[in-house]
Amino acid sequence: MEKWALCPKFEAAMAILGKRWTGLIVEVLLNGAARFSEIAQAIPSVSDRMLAERLRELEAEGIVIRRVFPEIPVRIVYELSDKGKDLAPVLAAVHQWADRWIIPPAPEPSVSAEGR
Amino acid sequence: MEKWALCPKFEAAMAILGKRWTGLIVEVLLNGAARFSEIAQAIPSVSDRMLAERLRELEAEGIVIRRVFPEIPVRIVYELSDKGKDLAPVLAAVHQWADRWIIPPAPEPSVSAEGR
Repeated sequence: MEKWALCPKFEAAMAILGKRWTGLIVEVLLNGAARFSEIAQAIPSVSDRMLAERLRELEAEGIVIRRVFPEIPVRIVYELSDKGKDLAPVLAAVHQWADRWIIPPAPEPSVSAEGR
Repeated sequence: MEKWALCPKFEAAMAILGKRWTGLIVEVLLNGAARFSEIAQAIPSVSDRMLAERLRELEAEGIVIRRVFPEIPVRIVYELSDKGKDLAPVLAAVHQWADRWIIPPAPEPSVSAEGR
């Protein structure tokens, strides 16, 4: 291999996207704006603390917009900016790759199977 | 937002790809097989220990192939499998997104500028 350097823009993009949960959060929000609890429910494996941290990072990167509706009780909704929505082709490419190469993880044994 | 669940294959793919360095390592190897030291040189920000760990994980996932040539001294080369090469469209989509949205990080001040 020739001596070779990564493109700084690509490297900066991967520093954002190549973080655990980031892709999953963007994927959830591509389906529409959502409240914190809805995102948390869609990604059971992420802790609330980590989800809050990732949302703050994505907001700081201009990928996620946090909207506060001054109702009682106050309603807070997260949605993708144009920069965030423009990640759709990246996630679509991941879907295509996953469909071709990933063997789906075995489903958890269901409760009804326990008595056997 | 409706109650909604992530596709398990997509989630499994993101657990692999959404790890720091993974995308950069695949990007380097898309340019051809490389030795450990060549990958390390192309990604200055990754430590040798972490790079070795990631390469082992990518090998276990069938994304990277480790070839050992029984020469003296022994030569070890890492290359992408078909599964790994098939990540090219994902990284191409990241490049397009980065070109549109990422402001390139400011270059480090060069040594020659230090005396000013």
